[in-house]
Amino acid sequence: MKLSKIVQVLEEIAPPELADDFDKGRIGLILGLKDEVSKIAVALDANSCVLQKAAEIGADMLITHHTLIFHPVNVISKTLAASLKIALENEISLYSMHTNYDRAEGGVNDVLAASLDLKNITTLELGRIGEIETCSSSELAAHVSDCLQTPVMYAGDRQEISRVMVAGGSCFRKEFLEIARENRVDAFISSELKHDVLREYEDLCLIDATHYATENPGMKALCPRLRELPGIEVEFIDQPSGLRAVDFGSDMDGNVPDTNEETNDCKQKENEKDSLEFMLEEQSRNQIRSDYRRSLGSENRRRYLE
Amino acid sequence: MKLSKIVQVLEEIAPPELADDFDKGRIGLILGLKDEVSKIAVALDANSCVLQKAAEIGADMLITHHTLIFHPVNVISKTLAASLKIALENEISLYSMHTNYDRAEGGVNDVLAASLDLKNITTLELGRIGEIETCSSSELAAHVSDCLQTPVMYAGDRQEISRVMVAGGSCFRKEFLEIARENRVDAFISSELKHDVLREYEDLCLIDATHYATENPGMKALCPRLRELPGIEVEFIDQPSGLRAVDFGSDMDGNVPDTNEETNDCKQKENEKDSLEFMLEEQSRNQIRSDYRRSLGSENRRRYLE
Amino acid sequence: MKLSKIVQVLEEIAPPELADDFDKGRIGLILGLKDEVSKIAVALDANSCVLQKAAEIGADMLITHHTLIFHPVNVISKTLAASLKIALENEISLYSMHTNYDRAEGGVNDVLAASLDLKNITTLELGRIGEIETCSSSELAAHVSDCLQTPVMYAGDRQEISRVMVAGGSCFRKEFLEIARENRVDAFISSELKHDVLREYEDLCLIDATHYATENPGMKALCPRLRELPGIEVEFIDQPSGLRAVDFGSDMDGNVPDTNEETNDCKQKENEKDSLEFMLEEQSRNQIRSDYRRSLGSENRRRYLE
Amino acid sequence: MKLSKIVQVLEEIAPPELADDFDKGRIGLILGLKDEVSKIAVALDANSCVLQKAAEIGADMLITHHTLIFHPVNVISKTLAASLKIALENEISLYSMHTNYDRAEGGVNDVLAASLDLKNITTLELGRIGEIETCSSSELAAHVSDCLQTPVMYAGDRQEISRVMVAGGSCFRKEFLEIARENRVDAFISSELKHDVLREYEDLCLIDATHYATENPGMKALCPRLRELPGIEVEFIDQPSGLRAVDFGSDMDGNVPDTNEETNDCKQKENEKDSLEFMLEEQSRNQIRSDYRRSLGSENRRRYLE
Amino acid sequence: MKLSKIVQVLEEIAPPELADDFDKGRIGLILGLKDEVSKIAVALDANSCVLQKAAEIGADMLITHHTLIFHPVNVISKTLAASLKIALENEISLYSMHTNYDRAEGGVNDVLAASLDLKNITTLELGRIGEIETCSSSELAAHVSDCLQTPVMYAGDRQEISRVMVAGGSCFRKEFLEIARENRVDAFISSELKHDVLREYEDLCLIDATHYATENPGMKALCPRLRELPGIEVEFIDQPSGLRAVDFGSDMDGNVPDTNEETNDCKQKENEKDSLEFMLEEQSRNQIRSDYRRSLGSENRRRYLE
Amino acid sequence: MKLSKIVQVLEEIAPPELADDFDKGRIGLILGLKDEVSKIAVALDANSCVLQKAAEIGADMLITHHTLIFHPVNVISKTLAASLKIALENEISLYSMHTNYDRAEGGVNDVLAASLDLKNITTLELGRIGEIETCSSSELAAHVSDCLQTPVMYAGDRQEISRVMVAGGSCFRKEFLEIARENRVDAFISSELKHDVLREYEDLCLIDATHYATENPGMKALCPRLRELPGIEVEFIDQPSGLRAVDFGSDMDGNVPDTNEETNDCKQKENEKDSLEFMLEEQSRNQIRSDYRRSLGSENRRRYLE
Repeated sequence: MKLSKIVQVLEEIAPPELADDFDKGRIGLILGLKDEVSKIAVALDANSCVLQKAAEIGADMLITHHTLIFHPVNVISKTLAASLKIALENEISLYSMHTNYDRAEGGVNDVLAASLDLKNITTLELGRIGEIETCSSSELAAHVSDCLQTPVMYAGDRQEISRVMVAGGSCFRKEFLEIARENRVDAFISSELKHDVLREYEDLCLIDATHYATENPGMKALCPRLRELPGIEVEFIDQPSGLRAVDFGSDMDGNVPDTNEETNDCKQKENEKDSLEFMLEEQSRNQIRSDYRRSLGSENRRRYLE
Repeated sequence: MKLSKIVQVLEEIAPPELADDFDKGRIGLILGLKDEVSKIAVALDANSCVLQKAAEIGADMLITHHTLIFHPVNVISKTLAASLKIALENEISLYSMHTNYDRAEGGVNDVLAASLDLKNITTLELGRIGEIETCSSSELAAHVSDCLQTPVMYAGDRQEISRVMVAGGSCFRKEFLEIARENRVDAFISSELKHDVLREYEDLCLIDATHYATENPGMKALCPRLRELPGIEVEFIDQPSGLRAVDFGSDMDGNVPDTNEETNDCKQKENEKDSLEFMLEEQSRNQIRSDYRRSLGSENRRRYLE
Repeated sequence: MKLSKIVQVLEEIAPPELADDFDKGRIGLILGLKDEVSKIAVALDANSCVLQKAAEIGADMLITHHTLIFHPVNVISKTLAASLKIALENEISLYSMHTNYDRAEGGVNDVLAASLDLKNITTLELGRIGEIETCSSSELAAHVSDCLQTPVMYAGDRQEISRVMVAGGSCFRKEFLEIARENRVDAFISSELKHDVLREYEDLCLIDATHYATENPGMKALCPRLRELPGIEVEFIDQPSGLRAVDFGSDMDGNVPDTNEETNDCKQKENEKDSLEFMLEEQSRNQIRSDYRRSLGSENRRRYLE
Repeated sequence: MKLSKIVQVLEEIAPPELADDFDKGRIGLILGLKDEVSKIAVALDANSCVLQKAAEIGADMLITHHTLIFHPVNVISKTLAASLKIALENEISLYSMHTNYDRAEGGVNDVLAASLDLKNITTLELGRIGEIETCSSSELAAHVSDCLQTPVMYAGDRQEISRVMVAGGSCFRKEFLEIARENRVDAFISSELKHDVLREYEDLCLIDATHYATENPGMKALCPRLRELPGIEVEFIDQPSGLRAVDFGSDMDGNVPDTNEETNDCKQKENEKDSLEFMLEEQSRNQIRSDYRRSLGSENRRRYLE
Repeated sequence: MKLSKIVQVLEEIAPPELADDFDKGRIGLILGLKDEVSKIAVALDANSCVLQKAAEIGADMLITHHTLIFHPVNVISKTLAASLKIALENEISLYSMHTNYDRAEGGVNDVLAASLDLKNITTLELGRIGEIETCSSSELAAHVSDCLQTPVMYAGDRQEISRVMVAGGSCFRKEFLEIARENRVDAFISSELKHDVLREYEDLCLIDATHYATENPGMKALCPRLRELPGIEVEFIDQPSGLRAVDFGSDMDGNVPDTNEETNDCKQKENEKDSLEFMLEEQSRNQIRSDYRRSLGSENRRRYLE
Repeated sequence: MKLSKIVQVLEEIAPPELADDFDKGRIGLILGLKDEVSKIAVALDANSCVLQKAAEIGADMLITHHTLIFHPVNVISKTLAASLKIALENEISLYSMHTNYDRAEGGVNDVLAASLDLKNITTLELGRIGEIETCSSSELAAHVSDCLQTPVMYAGDRQEISRVMVAGGSCFRKEFLEIARENRVDAFISSELKHDVLREYEDLCLIDATHYATENPGMKALCPRLRELPGIEVEFIDQPSGLRAVDFGSDMDGNVPDTNEETNDCKQKENEKDSLEFMLEEQSRNQIRSDYRRSLGSENRRRYLE
């Protein structure tokens, strides 16, 4: 099949105009080599390990979520040279679909929501919101860990969680957490949770399920769709993050409770919101969103940074 | 004791000129109220929970690592108003020591290194390097979790780790990881590990011990030093992050090994470095460091962003 | 009455979308405390003197023209702390209406024009133009001083003034003076006249009636409108600028005339404009206005900087 | 005398390296025409009126404080064309000395201090501080008006003023007012006082003696110095600002006192400063000054903007 | 005839809204002096030589392609003073039409295309494309040199050239060369060819016919059109560039061929493009054009920079 | 020989600290592949043609003046892919020396000066100045063409040229031409002469000897120096620009003289400079140089942009 024809199909699956502005130069055909394609490899990242496997299976095209060169270069590092050499010698064209595929129907976020068995899913400009059977924070964390086969870190003890927002990749950012609050979700599942965000959104259960585990399923799910192309073989190359978690066992339970109780008091007070507070939150949210949207280009809407 | 006198002592402990440029306006006396101070509270963050406790114990000064207002404001949010009200009504002055205290002798990083029982500690411009009894990645992760009483996430399987770099807060950034590599450490302990960093530094064991747990001990250790001031009571206010980890148990062991082996092959190849590679790395490190230093102001050296 | 309801009314009086871009973060609810409001104080500035009086009269909301924090802060100065303490302890919410209220119907400029007894008033995008009984510069200055109860400074001797432009606050700026010229007014009344503007617009009578005196009436006029709200008490807090003028008596008359005559010759020549000159002026004005408008955001039109 | 020789003399009087960075392109020889100069005109501004008189008296060089073209142009406006035509046709070279002459020994600020009969004058990096016989604000205002033959506006009632800071031109700016406070002066005399400054520095008597009247004497004083050059005639061209003041008479005395008293109470409280306050002020001043100095170029020190 | 009327006519000939954004302040009436115009001079550049001739022939208006002051000034250089003096003394108004006249119907590019006897001319947003009788690179270069009476430099040996793109001035820039490629022209005629462009577009015959010779005919052609204005005399002032070429004779033929042959091999390979390559080129061109268009202002379309 | 050892030698020949700031990322080891080097190829440009020849001769290192990737990329274009593939498959490391080699002793400019038989050569921060036997512009142009075996374009008729400045590459820029004027040279030889420069520096004979021909000799001259390295073969790969000139023959002589004479009159007048003019020029040159130097980084001096 012609590479140009495949590119056309990929643009239907993940329309480039859905991508964030910052993704300019980072999506689409990053390296175009052979006109005729018969085997496609799919992976999360484009690096020498993945490319080596793509070469071994005889792929002449590699589709990834993260592009080969994030920050533009004019020096070819050892690492980049290794990747490029494999691609050029084995004539493996590179194609990247990033925030456009996150946002697309059937893309990263839809697959993530489905992987977690969310029900009654609604699509936001960003992320997805769905329902689960009522459970506690620790139960939800275990569920996520189990569904995505990943270690997780979580914070925010909630006893009754039934409404959940998910966003693959690095979405624990203010603009998305405001959307979460505004939509009155109980928990937000994403990755790369930072300290200041954790402190500011203590009212939510926040589950960091790793960047890899929240995005990888979306790329895997691309394979069966591409297999429908006539005469095209498709293979997924998995490169796990290798992350492991160590929890801090029972000692913590002994030391911390008092503080926790007080902390909970704090949070309790914050949750007794009057109508003024909701108006202020609304105003603040509008400001954040308006800042956010102003930072978007005129052509496309953004969802998240990675 | 006069507030001005205490400020003088604090500036000896954490000289302002050690702070990063970006910390301008974020360290020193953030809010100065009562001239006479008799009770000091110390904490990691300045928020309404902490301030409430500071008020309850009758503190008239609160010293924190993270300042009250990170991004300058001209609207007083509900959250900020709550903190300010407590501080103003109870006349609690606020003082912040951040990257200057990270870098200072006896500051965040020295305490962190000591908490982990590192031996033969050397001080870098950033972070500390020390030695431990040889162990594997998982053993080191358990050790860190135990010493800091925190859940951790880690990546990078190494069987023989004896040389370790530590840097409290959010230091999994390129410039620090290059320093780690250059110093031939086996493991780097910090927090807020992101996917792209994890992928790029697979040759190192990376242990994310949370922002809270890597910085909190440094603030706690400030208390006994301040208690030496005549007529000053000092109390530490602990506000745990509440983070919990869920590991992904034994299933992973069953699925992943093959891939891991291949991944290890990849890494192996990368580790068989010839002299050229070291020269290239050196050049690259110099570039990164030179970029980094260029980004520093002329007066003070920086260490890390938070 | 609910604060949120009052905010709604204030947004009808001074629609936020009328504000200049630079006013972002400086208008609207700056500090929101009590949900229920029964007494509103109104003033020109938000500072500790005004807030103290607002507290004394039991106000739970203060509406001002100038906001509490103009340049965003992350350190709370002594001055700001004093203001904030009063507001927080007395639960006085702060609301600011600035360029949106200048431009609004019945706002600062409409009140200013009315205070000066202008007739046949027309509304510009900026300021107001009206007619007075023909008088000289010194007579007009005396009239302005009398109407606004303020010392004034003025320049530009005109014997026959009948068409006047007014703009409250600091509007002696090029773009507004070009509008004045283009509208063939004889005199322009505003405040904070600078030397270079005075020299460049010698053909106009320029009357600097102080920032305070040109804006204060507009805020005062807000009170009766708010008193129509059910169950709301409204009080105006006046904080005069304290400015006094000393004129330079009769000596000047003795020394200056010769020079003045020559100066007048100069101006005379400049006033004998041919059609070319008008075309050039038109072109220049278009440039200035187009620059000005380009500097405006896409959503709202601006009027003046303060 | 050679123009080049005169330029050399002028650079001794007002060394270019004393100028502010923003004056780059605005000082020195702005237009150099005739090699041989025999008559020099001196004035505050370079405009067509002044140039016309310079031409009438046969000057072949005009030295001014304010330059001909402030903002760089690529279109020659009608106004600029008029000035240029006179200069070019009459071969009048233009030379501008601005902030370098403000700061120079014997320059604008020294002359201003002397004109006001200040005693025991000390030179700051900016402005001058001196002593007068103890008087009230209104007495000082009358004295200034009389010495500089100008209308003035003033604010800040002080009964006992004996220590005064002066700075010609538009120096009512934060960085200079902080210097004034730090030097514990009672009054500050400059021009173009804005509302926000007036409100923030109510503890000082602020006297706005107009831009023209505070700078013109300095230019006039240049003449006798230049007359010492062999074979050079020198003439000063005065172009008064034409500003007149109208005070608001006795009515104000009747209305305002109450408010004034309260205002004074406010100020009183602010003046009862404890040692903490002084430390905070010191810190704030250091910040302002450090910001200010950072904004200066590396080569020269600045004094004021115009 | 009124100057204002002439300006109106000129704006019909070269509508200002066709100009590039960077031309703001560089087109239109640059200096407007006499209201009544009877003799117009036209030239490529506005400098003292041209102005002197304009004065000698009694012109009271000079229309040029390149404006008098390209980079805004606040110092009048000797060179600029010389030009301004002539213009002001002789009351010669200056008018500039630049990229608006390049793009206009009957403007620089249309005249250039006609001067070279192109057939079947089509108008691009930029430049013009036309056909010539099939010839070689050297024959076309000779033809251009002959038609424009100018020395030329050329590169890119093509034996069969029949489709040619032309763009007056400095248009050997990536965005225009991509348009040339996309339109499958054989040769591109413009000026100021740089080394990197020459190397990147070796597949095209590139003829550098000098900035002067490609734009001068367009200005000359303006004269007869203006002569139709009632009561207006028009004269063209030619100021040749004085450029001469020295070719490197027959020696080169002896040395270079081998290399040339190899070079030709290279190019040959590059010309055997498959469909993928065309798609990639298409994508690359779209990117360049989209970047280019994004860099354009919202009001007018651009063509070239000079 | 070790690549790292060769790099060390190259850094002695062209010290990196001599490079312009803009060359950051564009000099040094651009792509480092094999640790051991036995054959080095040298060329002006790094493109697929040159790389193909380097591969054919078995080079494992290519040293060029112009780097492979000028503007940083994150998409690998067809052209770049072709170059990279050859380099990676044949393990050809890439090293670039640009402005550092221009400025270095024995570098591009020294070789250029020697190639033109200049005598008594002095080294400027930029370029070189030397003497030739007195000749006319056309004679010098012929000499340059002959020495560099290149077509040339020239302007500025001078009958007696004996003092010449040379600067390889694209150095017809204001800052270098001012240096030329200041050093009272008769002719300046460089490349890529633009129209505005030609017009502004009509007093100089300007010879555009092409970018290729002025820089290529410097790279060629590198070869014998590298051949002294033990066990290293060195080969130069020449890729001529292919530029040819067509002069505009005798017709021009017939048409242009009148204009030329007048033009000469113009220039004559400009050359009758009085002492004032020299002072002004001096001042202007100082400004330009000071601007230029200010634009330089603190570490290294710049010479030219390409």
